Amino acid sequence: MKSRAAVAFGPGKPLEIVEIDVAPPQRGEVLVQITHTGVCHTDAFTLSGDDPEGLFPAVLGHEGAGVVVEVGEGVTSLKPGDHVIPLYTAECRECKFCLSGKTNLCQKVRATQGKGVMPDGTSRFSYEGKPLYHYMGCSTFSEYTVVNEISLAKINPAAPHEKVCLLGCGVTTGLGAVHNTAKVKEGDTVAVFGLGGIGLAVIQGAVQAKAGRIIAVDTNPNKFVLASAMGATDCINPKDHDKPIQDVIVEMTDGGVDFSFECIGNVHVMRAALECCHKGWGESVIIGVAGAGQEISTRPFQLVTGRVWRGSAFGGVKGRTQLPGMVEDAMSGKIDLDPFVTHTLPLERINEAFDLMHDGKSIRTVIHY
Amino acid sequence: MKSRAAVAFGPGKPLEIVEIDVAPPQRGEVLVQITHTGVCHTDAFTLSGDDPEGLFPAVLGHEGAGVVVEVGEGVTSLKPGDHVIPLYTAECRECKFCLSGKTNLCQKVRATQGKGVMPDGTSRFSYEGKPLYHYMGCSTFSEYTVVNEISLAKINPAAPHEKVCLLGCGVTTGLGAVHNTAKVKEGDTVAVFGLGGIGLAVIQGAVQAKAGRIIAVDTNPNKFVLASAMGATDCINPKDHDKPIQDVIVEMTDGGVDFSFECIGNVHVMRAALECCHKGWGESVIIGVAGAGQEISTRPFQLVTGRVWRGSAFGGVKGRTQLPGMVEDAMSGKIDLDPFVTHTLPLERINEAFDLMHDGKSIRTVIHY
Repeated sequence: MKSRAAVAFGPGKPLEIVEIDVAPPQRGEVLVQITHTGVCHTDAFTLSGDDPEGLFPAVLGHEGAGVVVEVGEGVTSLKPGDHVIPLYTAECRECKFCLSGKTNLCQKVRATQGKGVMPDGTSRFSYEGKPLYHYMGCSTFSEYTVVNEISLAKINPAAPHEKVCLLGCGVTTGLGAVHNTAKVKEGDTVAVFGLGGIGLAVIQGAVQAKAGRIIAVDTNPNKFVLASAMGATDCINPKDHDKPIQDVIVEMTDGGVDFSFECIGNVHVMRAALECCHKGWGESVIIGVAGAGQEISTRPFQLVTGRVWRGSAFGGVKGRTQLPGMVEDAMSGKIDLDPFVTHTLPLERINEAFDLMHDGKSIRTVIHY
Repeated sequence: MKSRAAVAFGPGKPLEIVEIDVAPPQRGEVLVQITHTGVCHTDAFTLSGDDPEGLFPAVLGHEGAGVVVEVGEGVTSLKPGDHVIPLYTAECRECKFCLSGKTNLCQKVRATQGKGVMPDGTSRFSYEGKPLYHYMGCSTFSEYTVVNEISLAKINPAAPHEKVCLLGCGVTTGLGAVHNTAKVKEGDTVAVFGLGGIGLAVIQGAVQAKAGRIIAVDTNPNKFVLASAMGATDCINPKDHDKPIQDVIVEMTDGGVDFSFECIGNVHVMRAALECCHKGWGESVIIGVAGAGQEISTRPFQLVTGRVWRGSAFGGVKGRTQLPGMVEDAMSGKIDLDPFVTHTLPLERINEAFDLMHDGKSIRTVIHY
């Protein structure tokens, strides 16, 4: 079938809105009509060409919501008409990882997903007869996309797609990092580095967890308004201080924070985030994705004296199991998605969404088809 | 009073056995007659001059056992005749750290201890009228030493000092890292880097925890005999492999270990120890103390994909609360200290203990007074 799509034909080039061909879903696959998709920094990172695993030409996009149109052979958990959120972290419930009870990092389709193809090694997308790569197992920048059954969370059909699409990545990542990875408790002190969508979601998660103090850190003071509105108790700009920001935070918290979150992808900030943690028990969670080949470092003494360094992917959330409940929480108001949707644009103007992001003017632009 | 002591007069010099002067215990302090002391790598590290915090002249030694001779004003938990193990990690039960319930890193006397003096800022040791520095709050290389009340664990008077002195550092550090820091469970796969006293204690702890597989790693294959005898299921020498040892371990364990322990203090090994952990849940515990200014590094992706990097000091053990029970366990055989005591020497021959350690011939030499 034909589908409108915003295609990334090459690194550093604007997306092109074209009509592509989408092949029918194969065994275990599902054809989904995407109604809305967010535009995330990860899409921009890949589009820039800095992502060493980036493949072109590709249909990007991984933060969407839609409706099942057709299911392939063997698909049992979904049927046409079901409302879904595509998952870049699948949940097969069969692999060693899913069965471990310790991680959300299902590996069932990881290898082929990383290569931009479906599990059979081929693509369902083509343009002028030539294949286009899939992206993160989602490719939500095409109105019709093919996704693995195990990469789709079935959600309440009454959920507003224009908002809950953001649970497909950024908001879930931030909330989950607080609740699943760090397990922030009432009264804890928290530092959040980077006040984009994920950082703001961390703040919202910390508020939900009743954190006692939430320190928001960014070099762009324009971000402080929204951060404060969402519940940050302190907003600090590293540029306002002569000493390293970790020293500033250790001083203002009488020893450091209980939990810190790096929501940027900057390895130097990751170090600061670790080192602002309280001796004896502070834990730092890396959420941001660093550039290729970049490394984090610190003195091992930081860890020997009780700090813990960990990371979080998709907030530790098992998509098929946990995302439906988070959609319900968004519908009941326990999760507030409104602050994240700063712009809405039709597919044809998707490149403007990237500009808004690069200029720091948007938290999330939601694209509607 | 006079006391025989092995004094470190300067970096890189052998210890000198001399008669020093020991002043009476002041408020909150206790005079202890040391009966036995182990010689640990940390003593050698400081003696070498590589320890940036090392102070000279000093009375080293931090792994001992002894008997209370006299108590200073205000000491209520100990009386003359009590058997004790000095603690380089105090337990005041009053500070923010002790009260947190999250760490054993009591900070009550940390600052002065690091400066080689008692809490009032002065030393109880002198030689020819000039003060000698204390070391790690213990100074067990003097037959008579002055220790803070909060830095003494009161133990069963029937305990064999020539063995339980090792619970003052190495063995407790290794066992505690397994049980308190990593919390190894039955069936877990464990890798241990460095088969000195701490590494062997980690192996013993892993056996106690019923770990399913215990991989011992060392570049000195002579260490494999004892490691195997203590319960290591696999012994591997990085020199026998062309590829990085973390890759070897990931292959032989179908994805990596559940827990790894670095028991050397080598920052490159610390990286290998992290990277041999299983994606999704593997945790690496740094126990070894690295040289001044050295840093650990890795790709943040290692953490984002679920590995955890932490450290352990004195095995997370709260000395006054938990060490007495560990002494009981050593007496009942639950903890086996015999394999660690490879040599016994009188104080006069203490420099031979350092030689045996440097030559890799000893696990622990126990010095008796």
